[in-house]
Amino acid sequence: MDTKDNNTPDYAAFLVAARQLLGPRGLTQDAELIEPWLTDWRGVYTGAALAMASPGTVEEVAALVRLCAAHGVSLVPQGGNSGMSGGATPDTSGHQIILSLRRMHAIRTIDAEARQVTCEAGVILQNLHEAVAEQGLRFPLTLGGKGSATIGGLISTNAGGTQVLRHGTMRAQVLGLEAILADGSRFDALVPLKKDNRGFDLKQVLIGSEGTLGIITAATLQLAPAPAGRRVLWVGVASLQMARAFLLHCDAMAGMALEGFEIIPAYSLAAVLHHLPGSRAPLDTDHTWHVLVELVAGTETMAGLQDLAEQVLATAFEAGLIENATIAASESQAEAFWLLRESISAAERARGPAVQHDVSVAVEQMPAFIDTVAPRVESAFPGTKVIAYGHLGDGNVHLHVLSPAGSVQGEWQKTTGKKISALIYDCVAEWGGSISAEHGIGQAKLAELARLTDPVRLGMMRAVKHALDPGNILNPGKLVPLAPDQAKP
Amino acid sequence: MDTKDNNTPDYAAFLVAARQLLGPRGLTQDAELIEPWLTDWRGVYTGAALAMASPGTVEEVAALVRLCAAHGVSLVPQGGNSGMSGGATPDTSGHQIILSLRRMHAIRTIDAEARQVTCEAGVILQNLHEAVAEQGLRFPLTLGGKGSATIGGLISTNAGGTQVLRHGTMRAQVLGLEAILADGSRFDALVPLKKDNRGFDLKQVLIGSEGTLGIITAATLQLAPAPAGRRVLWVGVASLQMARAFLLHCDAMAGMALEGFEIIPAYSLAAVLHHLPGSRAPLDTDHTWHVLVELVAGTETMAGLQDLAEQVLATAFEAGLIENATIAASESQAEAFWLLRESISAAERARGPAVQHDVSVAVEQMPAFIDTVAPRVESAFPGTKVIAYGHLGDGNVHLHVLSPAGSVQGEWQKTTGKKISALIYDCVAEWGGSISAEHGIGQAKLAELARLTDPVRLGMMRAVKHALDPGNILNPGKLVPLAPDQAKP
Repeated sequence: MDTKDNNTPDYAAFLVAARQLLGPRGLTQDAELIEPWLTDWRGVYTGAALAMASPGTVEEVAALVRLCAAHGVSLVPQGGNSGMSGGATPDTSGHQIILSLRRMHAIRTIDAEARQVTCEAGVILQNLHEAVAEQGLRFPLTLGGKGSATIGGLISTNAGGTQVLRHGTMRAQVLGLEAILADGSRFDALVPLKKDNRGFDLKQVLIGSEGTLGIITAATLQLAPAPAGRRVLWVGVASLQMARAFLLHCDAMAGMALEGFEIIPAYSLAAVLHHLPGSRAPLDTDHTWHVLVELVAGTETMAGLQDLAEQVLATAFEAGLIENATIAASESQAEAFWLLRESISAAERARGPAVQHDVSVAVEQMPAFIDTVAPRVESAFPGTKVIAYGHLGDGNVHLHVLSPAGSVQGEWQKTTGKKISALIYDCVAEWGGSISAEHGIGQAKLAELARLTDPVRLGMMRAVKHALDPGNILNPGKLVPLAPDQAKP
Repeated sequence: MDTKDNNTPDYAAFLVAARQLLGPRGLTQDAELIEPWLTDWRGVYTGAALAMASPGTVEEVAALVRLCAAHGVSLVPQGGNSGMSGGATPDTSGHQIILSLRRMHAIRTIDAEARQVTCEAGVILQNLHEAVAEQGLRFPLTLGGKGSATIGGLISTNAGGTQVLRHGTMRAQVLGLEAILADGSRFDALVPLKKDNRGFDLKQVLIGSEGTLGIITAATLQLAPAPAGRRVLWVGVASLQMARAFLLHCDAMAGMALEGFEIIPAYSLAAVLHHLPGSRAPLDTDHTWHVLVELVAGTETMAGLQDLAEQVLATAFEAGLIENATIAASESQAEAFWLLRESISAAERARGPAVQHDVSVAVEQMPAFIDTVAPRVESAFPGTKVIAYGHLGDGNVHLHVLSPAGSVQGEWQKTTGKKISALIYDCVAEWGGSISAEHGIGQAKLAELARLTDPVRLGMMRAVKHALDPGNILNPGKLVPLAPDQAKP
């Protein structure tokens, strides 16, 4: 070990070696260059960094990790820095290295026949979408941050988005993976094998591990054929139970064509219409809940898809599942429908302080869960308003609690907001759900994870973390709530 | 530790405690009752056992594992004992306990609306098929051993079968899991969450771990709607490359309706026709390769499926991909086509000694792989004949090498056969493939796994095994080639 006697790393010696390894393009201590990467996307966490490393090759990543291991210096891997839980933000010690994968942005191969792409971790999602679209293909996972989120970050956080209902989360897209482990060795499983029973499926452990078990450097991803087009439906329903019944109806009739099923409460639609200049409600009738449905043509023709959309609605009316509905008449109207859904968060921010929760329970329990939790919160914290919206088809909703009028931004979240979150997470735990459906744990939910996780699961996580990163140099303080005796010496 | 001074477990004391715990129904030392479970399904391995435990509840499994951990006694979990790699057979020491899950065969709940079933580990696959069919649903994974294979065993080995092309292996069916870990604690993740980013997806590590990390006691599985029916096609093609092109063609045209795509060489078809009394070739023309295609109606009507089948074939003819083809005119003819495919192995056994290899490479490389390996083996071992058949659509074929005329059964496999296997596994490793696509490692391939696995992957496997089963009491000597210093004290 190349460290000083008292176990404090010799940062000066480390920096000399790292600079020699990576050169000026690959390692910087320039405060101005580093500054944009020290604060998370939501602006909640700000850290400090010893330096920012931007290796250009997997060999450089491996050599850097070996160097960090030898010196006991810890690393915070970072892609587009657009995570929701502070997972890519260094701590405030100034002793951690930001390991940016952004220079590694090569799309190595697109195999149109096999419908696979192999690319480096730093490829931005939108660039991947465009590159595969040129070959008549589609990478089906998408989300709001697609202009900055990288493939490595999306895999490390097992990202979700609006097409999960049909295509699954990032985990379902990953056929092969390459990663650098804590000792600098390379885990190479890039060749995509559809069937491989040679023991533990180790890439599954790396997916969603938020950089705590390895640095993902490249991946082979599954692609889908480019769709012929889509139909977007806006539907009014009387209750969450009816929304759930309508979901089952859509699923039975549309099968694989059903790609999106989002719920929006009347309150949120009104807030968005108030907030968005020139926006219009899709329906001229009032409903307690609204549903946005997206049907995508796979092997169907567009005429067939239109027929299907009409049949789905006609039979749902007959069965008394829905109150009113419309099909977007054009692509621009379809986009306008989606804009209403995507503006909920912004409209809410404009209104005042709120606390957000990204939770999931079993899909069929979600209506009952919301109907139980919302009144419980509203009665325990008078003046608050609970709104739930999002991916009903995935059992995943964004449960937001709006503060009473006159609450002070920042202050309210830290006091009452914190108590509300604890109550909601307690309810989620009671229902066997997840306190993080898609946004991950990072540093934001580390304490709540430690508090609410079954000790058996927590013990397994700690054991696996310790087995694969015994020196705790990979993104320490994120995702895995270590036991006191596991803390770094 | 309740063991003797020299670290040898006190088996007598253990048995007294185990008998007290499980009662006469749950623990037996009766040689006659144990005997059928000491030899693997293929008849290659025979072990001995201290006793056979058959707990009736998850609590009993947990208590037994705790007892084993305290005494240092190791366990061999067993479902239907129909594995292909000796993974459920105890060693010859007579010091291991067979842990049979067969008494735990309750189907706890079938949720027709959510299309999910929760059942115990000992449920036999065929019983599950029938139970869900009664509710208009389908569990899509199937294989030859369905009359004996249990859900726990299928999950522990991440079983494949003939519907993997469309539905994936067992891993893709598992929504939730319950398991007892090496210290007797219960990992409870039965509630199926479609989205859950609370850290490592630990159930993925248990799936396919062949009982070396935990004892699977129950699972929640995904179901599909019962299909309206199927169309089975028999097609003659000129080469493997054409078979691959035809696969892409079927995939593009039939999409989700394509559920099976099996290849059969002319040699194997002839052997089956010779072996099976009253069997007939589906086509009256000769072809180098034959393809069995299964199309299943999801949302389509049967008339639509027939149209689709006819279009797939007509356009394939036009494109010059196929030489001749027929569509089974009835369900009984469809069954007859499948019987030809399923009889390859039996026809081969009747012919003489052979060695079998269950290998995979990237799907698009499979034709080139077979065309490279077959002549290499046949020229290195004169008089042998290589046949490849099976799941081309999964990149997984069964590569069998038939011995020269006059070879002695048993003797030939142990001498020349072993050398042939080593050569084939070397080729697989060269191509980045898997030496075990679906049959698992068990004890049969442990040495070859140790020899051919990348040291990084091997190191990760060992680290995870040691982290979760430090005493090495769960199915030792299977799947994970331990390092010499990890062997049990």
